[in-house]
Amino acid sequence: MIYLDNAASTQIHEDVLDSMLPYLKEQYGNPSSIHRYGRLAHKAIEKARKQIASLINADPSEILLTSGGTESNNMVLVGISTKNTPCQIITSSIEHDAILEPCKKLTQNGVDVVYLPVDKFGMVNPLDLKNHLSEKTCLVSIMFGNNEVGTIQPIPEIATICNERKIPFHTDAVQAVGKIQIDVKELGIDLLSISSHKLNGPKGVGALYIKNGIDIEPVILGGGQEHGLRSGTENVANIVGFGKACEIAKNNLDTNMSYVKKLRDTLIEKVLNEIPEVTLNGDPQSRLPNNAHFTFLGVNGEDLIIKLDEYGIAASTGSACSVHTQRASHVLQAMGFSHEQITGSLRLTIGIFNNENEIEQTVSTLKKIVEELRSFSPFKEKYSFVTKT
Amino acid sequence: MIYLDNAASTQIHEDVLDSMLPYLKEQYGNPSSIHRYGRLAHKAIEKARKQIASLINADPSEILLTSGGTESNNMVLVGISTKNTPCQIITSSIEHDAILEPCKKLTQNGVDVVYLPVDKFGMVNPLDLKNHLSEKTCLVSIMFGNNEVGTIQPIPEIATICNERKIPFHTDAVQAVGKIQIDVKELGIDLLSISSHKLNGPKGVGALYIKNGIDIEPVILGGGQEHGLRSGTENVANIVGFGKACEIAKNNLDTNMSYVKKLRDTLIEKVLNEIPEVTLNGDPQSRLPNNAHFTFLGVNGEDLIIKLDEYGIAASTGSACSVHTQRASHVLQAMGFSHEQITGSLRLTIGIFNNENEIEQTVSTLKKIVEELRSFSPFKEKYSFVTKT
Ligand SMILES: Cc1ncc(COP(=O)(O)O)c(C=O)c1O
Ligand SMILES: Cc1ncc(COP(=O)(O)O)c(C=O)c1O
Repeated sequence: MIYLDNAASTQIHEDVLDSMLPYLKEQYGNPSSIHRYGRLAHKAIEKARKQIASLINADPSEILLTSGGTESNNMVLVGISTKNTPCQIITSSIEHDAILEPCKKLTQNGVDVVYLPVDKFGMVNPLDLKNHLSEKTCLVSIMFGNNEVGTIQPIPEIATICNERKIPFHTDAVQAVGKIQIDVKELGIDLLSISSHKLNGPKGVGALYIKNGIDIEPVILGGGQEHGLRSGTENVANIVGFGKACEIAKNNLDTNMSYVKKLRDTLIEKVLNEIPEVTLNGDPQSRLPNNAHFTFLGVNGEDLIIKLDEYGIAASTGSACSVHTQRASHVLQAMGFSHEQITGSLRLTIGIFNNENEIEQTVSTLKKIVEELRSFSPFKEKYSFVTKT
Repeated sequence: MIYLDNAASTQIHEDVLDSMLPYLKEQYGNPSSIHRYGRLAHKAIEKARKQIASLINADPSEILLTSGGTESNNMVLVGISTKNTPCQIITSSIEHDAILEPCKKLTQNGVDVVYLPVDKFGMVNPLDLKNHLSEKTCLVSIMFGNNEVGTIQPIPEIATICNERKIPFHTDAVQAVGKIQIDVKELGIDLLSISSHKLNGPKGVGALYIKNGIDIEPVILGGGQEHGLRSGTENVANIVGFGKACEIAKNNLDTNMSYVKKLRDTLIEKVLNEIPEVTLNGDPQSRLPNNAHFTFLGVNGEDLIIKLDEYGIAASTGSACSVHTQRASHVLQAMGFSHEQITGSLRLTIGIFNNENEIEQTVSTLKKIVEELRSFSPFKEKYSFVTKT
């Protein structure tokens, strides 16, 4: 199998699994217990917290452990808005559903949510943000890198605008952490969501960076873990693995990401050169190093994925997480894409375990499949599909 | 080490870990992805859901996967009360903090919460419940087995009262599932919380049984997983392990629990016989098979635990989860215990991996330590501590 769906989830790094095993075997204590078993589990969590903090240059005390990126996002939106009434939240129209859906619900509860538009590359304009800020704005939440088209937002400019007005700035960095250098202090970020399974860590664990001094209400209450901000017995093994994954990502970020980017660039170049009527979506420059997102006109993206799957290649139309809702991509809609452009889209996301051979095989398979699918296409006559050679 | 803190957390069963490993290695797909990797992950989750459902005789469609018992409890309280205004919740004064703390917050939001008292054995009186039910009652939540003293509540009577009035009945069964036979259909339970790590499964995963037809609002929103009731990429490996743990618990429930109960009964008998001035707390009959909870007068329970730990025995004062809050046990307070009785308490909870030798070693160590600690006790004069022989 050739796995090119690394934005949906990634393979756990061998060293990450090794770090987890003791906590799935003999170190099964509850971190809240005061005996040796408990203390060892507690220590393991605090080590992981340091590793996670280090990846984004935060203080360990600023890392809150959660069950994943979705919970981190929900917690920010609910936890900040309940502290401030009346509250206006400014976000963007291309956020992940883990931002958009809680926002929808908050709207029902009287919170005013503004969705900033994006340009055809999926980019937010910081000036738009500036124009929308008001007395009531209690939170700005703009994602770091988009999960579908890979566009990286102008985070420094956005953070500066928020910092000047002392409005908490959150960024959903689930797709960006471990892929690009992120220094929360330097960038002026107040809150940031991370998900372990997107960076070769285990699923079901994530973090929320909360800058010291930012006041946020807990959502899940109980035994008082995480200083009362997130109760529930800690997912020790997964937290340990998450920490290790962050350490590995930090130590190898430049090497890994130039490797991934090279594969991705090869992929893009070959696809654009060898297949006719293909466009690259998202910002060509300011984009995540692992993301390639195309529109193959006259082809249905879902058919493409099913065909690729038959050839042993794992790909996606966009957000794996919105499969359940069966809607056309809200990201591509916000970018002004036509229905046809949206339908023909395919996301290929590279991981550290991919290699050049896999990329070449993917391109040649894709070429064959696209040609085949287009031969049945209702748009067959509309475009004159000439196979490039 | 002798681990007698199985109510805090349990060792993962070998077969459980084996079932998880493929999902920590090569099966890393996101269950929402439509390619083979995704489908395999999805299938694994649905298998686990069946295993979990089977343990409590629910339908798989009635099992909602969460990040643990704490989240399950929070979801019930928030998810039911936001659907019904005005809302009155009836619960008990001996619930876990994962019920009490969300209740406290709901009170601030205008929900009326009634806490039923308990008798000296920690038992709720179903008549009390009956007397408190009103037009506004939208939820009754009474735990199945208490995590500190082990008392099992009169669940059939409570369920019948709720069923007659058509009021949703939730039970926090985190300590009871896998320990005693639970048939949600037969018992008339509408909602039930489970936590994997209490039954030899991994941490960070749990479930909420929601009887078909019960209407509940989601708390964590996003990609629409779990039919929109709990978003976030699924913790596949842990879910698979949780399922396996439920299967093992179901297949061995009678054998395992009569084994555990025998060890526990030996422990209680020996402690009461061989150590003076000791009482067993909680209901002597209607109690969880793995729980022993004592008061050693004239001794500080925390000192006892620290000493036991030095001798390689892991024990607890009560709820591991309320260590953070540093309060005197609200359970023992509700049972009418004096400060001295509360201070001298110790919980020993047996697991399927304990053996008779460990129990004997524990009793003899306990005997020695209690005697030693009492020799320094400020209550030394108050009681005439005669070591039984
Ligand atoms: C009765 C009870 N409810 C809820 C919980 C919390 O479950 P979890 O540890 O999965 O967060 C516990 C765990 O201590 C418990 O004993
Ligand atoms: C941008 C973004 N935010 C949030 C999430 C959700 O995180 P998790 O998968 O940990 O629930 C995802 C995952 O698809 C994502 O891509």
